[in-house]
Amino acid sequence: MQNPYFMNTETMRRLVERKRDGGRIAADEWHELVAAFTRGTLDEAQMAALAMACVFRGLDLDETIALTAATIDSGERIDLGIDGFVLDKHSSGGVGDTVSLIVVPLVAACGVPVAKVSGRALGHTGGTLDKLEAIPGVRTDLDPPSFAAIVREIGCAISAQSDRLVPADRKLYALRDRTGTVPSPGLIAASIVSKKIAAGADGIVYDVKCGRGAFVPDAAGARALAQTLVDVTERFERRAAVVISDMNEPLGPVVGAGLEAIEARDFLRGDRCDPRLREVVTTIAARMLELAALDPIASTDALLDRLAAALSSGRAYERFVAMIEAQGGTRNALESLGPASSFASTAAEDGYVRGIDAVSIGELAREIEARGVPCAGVRIAKRIGDRAERGEPLAFIVGGTEAQAHSLAGTFELGTERVAPRQPIVETVSGSLARSTSATR
Amino acid sequence: MQNPYFMNTETMRRLVERKRDGGRIAADEWHELVAAFTRGTLDEAQMAALAMACVFRGLDLDETIALTAATIDSGERIDLGIDGFVLDKHSSGGVGDTVSLIVVPLVAACGVPVAKVSGRALGHTGGTLDKLEAIPGVRTDLDPPSFAAIVREIGCAISAQSDRLVPADRKLYALRDRTGTVPSPGLIAASIVSKKIAAGADGIVYDVKCGRGAFVPDAAGARALAQTLVDVTERFERRAAVVISDMNEPLGPVVGAGLEAIEARDFLRGDRCDPRLREVVTTIAARMLELAALDPIASTDALLDRLAAALSSGRAYERFVAMIEAQGGTRNALESLGPASSFASTAAEDGYVRGIDAVSIGELAREIEARGVPCAGVRIAKRIGDRAERGEPLAFIVGGTEAQAHSLAGTFELGTERVAPRQPIVETVSGSLARSTSATR
Repeated sequence: MQNPYFMNTETMRRLVERKRDGGRIAADEWHELVAAFTRGTLDEAQMAALAMACVFRGLDLDETIALTAATIDSGERIDLGIDGFVLDKHSSGGVGDTVSLIVVPLVAACGVPVAKVSGRALGHTGGTLDKLEAIPGVRTDLDPPSFAAIVREIGCAISAQSDRLVPADRKLYALRDRTGTVPSPGLIAASIVSKKIAAGADGIVYDVKCGRGAFVPDAAGARALAQTLVDVTERFERRAAVVISDMNEPLGPVVGAGLEAIEARDFLRGDRCDPRLREVVTTIAARMLELAALDPIASTDALLDRLAAALSSGRAYERFVAMIEAQGGTRNALESLGPASSFASTAAEDGYVRGIDAVSIGELAREIEARGVPCAGVRIAKRIGDRAERGEPLAFIVGGTEAQAHSLAGTFELGTERVAPRQPIVETVSGSLARSTSATR
Repeated sequence: MQNPYFMNTETMRRLVERKRDGGRIAADEWHELVAAFTRGTLDEAQMAALAMACVFRGLDLDETIALTAATIDSGERIDLGIDGFVLDKHSSGGVGDTVSLIVVPLVAACGVPVAKVSGRALGHTGGTLDKLEAIPGVRTDLDPPSFAAIVREIGCAISAQSDRLVPADRKLYALRDRTGTVPSPGLIAASIVSKKIAAGADGIVYDVKCGRGAFVPDAAGARALAQTLVDVTERFERRAAVVISDMNEPLGPVVGAGLEAIEARDFLRGDRCDPRLREVVTTIAARMLELAALDPIASTDALLDRLAAALSSGRAYERFVAMIEAQGGTRNALESLGPASSFASTAAEDGYVRGIDAVSIGELAREIEARGVPCAGVRIAKRIGDRAERGEPLAFIVGGTEAQAHSLAGTFELGTERVAPRQPIVETVSGSLARSTSATR
């Protein structure tokens, strides 16, 4: 394949060989190859070989930044037209991870605009767009002007990524997905950060999931990815913080788009408050407020008080309803949502829950949802560390079959010895720009 | 890309991920993926990612054997229709490597048929087909029946690979070439051995080049490749031996298709006998005779005597002429060949030759030949370890320009300290089938 551009087959072959042999690819080379890939003049086989070499050899920080910049430059940037600080929040993908639906209106209710760009369910993990669309009438395919208008008017919006944003990333991600080249921290960071910068955020809190149900299984890998996300984001003069959260069991009590929409509604309305979900929600929301630095001398306790007040006063819930309405839904549709009927999965003998297979539960929930019943999935009754008596429900299949309830029981590992519950927050990493804004606390 | 075959996108993605994570690919999986790749129903990007994962993770012996078998099964096998043992010989690619043109008629003159399938020049290395075709009239695109007929009648033939042989290898090699995934010993061995088995050889001597001018630079890598070649070949119940030869400087005295044809002619006719070329020729030819085991109790000295007699009697040369005639050339055309006019590259000062850049000389010879003058290239006058006085020729540009003679001088590194000449043979590796036939010697 010869083409009139600088990045021809021979040049690209030499870049692949250099990366394979442990060398670096320069910023202008990343720009050329991403541009050629986006316009379809680069051999996909060469790009796949390069991606696999990146999986083994890694990208250093400068390469990751160059790839991020090249990815941003492949498409448009959204100008939200908002004076002042705009936040976004990203999750690396989890099971029962209902955090975004709650945190977005909650932080907006505290006075900081949140313009969240979200994705779809991927593999065993859920997608925020699917959860929001489980509320009848709600649309997430907002064009950039409508997205910006809703954020300006309501203080928050959750939208699918515009086709005009980072086209290189969509194309590269599709290639990586089918060629087994997803797990490269540099490629992952460039993919995530480029979307957030292009969508116009001034500050981003990243939730990096870590554990057997996450795309990054080990703490060291999560920590390295966290630091890369912060470093790359700050190089673009945006503020960043990372919360590393546990994904060795599902985060919240329910798994499934409609069930999670109900859970978010009930959490915001004060009807129900799962302690694990609350801990991650408040940690992430507090970090978001810190990044915005509304009140640079506010202590963490003051921020938490502010969040609690937004919840208890009903302001956070009203903001959620307003966002749903602005995106095409109705209060009535939201409040009418209820779970499908359920079957219990019970403990076959007495014991302590030692493990819950989040991947299998995520896949099972997707399978149940595929049957077409609204508000279906899985509800978790017992957590790692909980005691279960024989015959007591461990979890429920909602909107599924008895056979599915049987396989659900297999995702719980019980033992006779007591085990400690898992802490949902592993650690947090703040960028220097974020720290400098709150250095006096 | 969905297809009706077992090896769909999802299955292939899981294979790539398994290899990426250090796992094995089973024999039936190699067969399925090679078959799908050959018929064009496999995503080339997935295949490229797999090849890069193989570069990093390697293939174990069983995987290499399975890939070899799958590659053989992708096309036809030649039935030479010859009773008794048929030899082939393979070189991993060198500069000034005139061995094949000499060894093929020489071994045939000792009574063992040689059916050699050869390749074209690749990168900086020469190709036996190009050298043979430098003799006016000679054809190498023999169809399998003609190839077999010439071997039966004359005792030897040198042919290009039929398009119907190992189509998977041609396709995979083209992909590996452009995606930087050539340097994997398992992939290299499967590519080489599959061709030799499909072409009908009973015994194969592999010449693995090793050094800065070779595709395998280090001795450890050459040794590992040598053992893999032997092990894989023997699994197909063929006999194998490997000669590892030095490629830190050009092997013979000339580099270039026509010049090497002349060198082979003069060597076989007894007019000229470069000592480095002779050592590699006789080592490889003796191994070939050993594999054939014409006389299992013959000592190595007896084999060398036999080779010397075939040369001094003129039988080897007459066999060469007969082969050339059978492939479309004439004795007169062969004997009329003469080198183009030359320019000397002289030493700028007194010294010992410390190094000769074989890659640059190979590339220079290709560049000179591209000008279209017949019998052009490079003639080496001084070897590593030789003393050169200021103004004495180091080498000659044949059929080229004075400017090329100037750049030729730059490929020689001279120093004031004496250095030892390099031995052209590094070591030899024999298979157990080969050893068992000559165990009594």
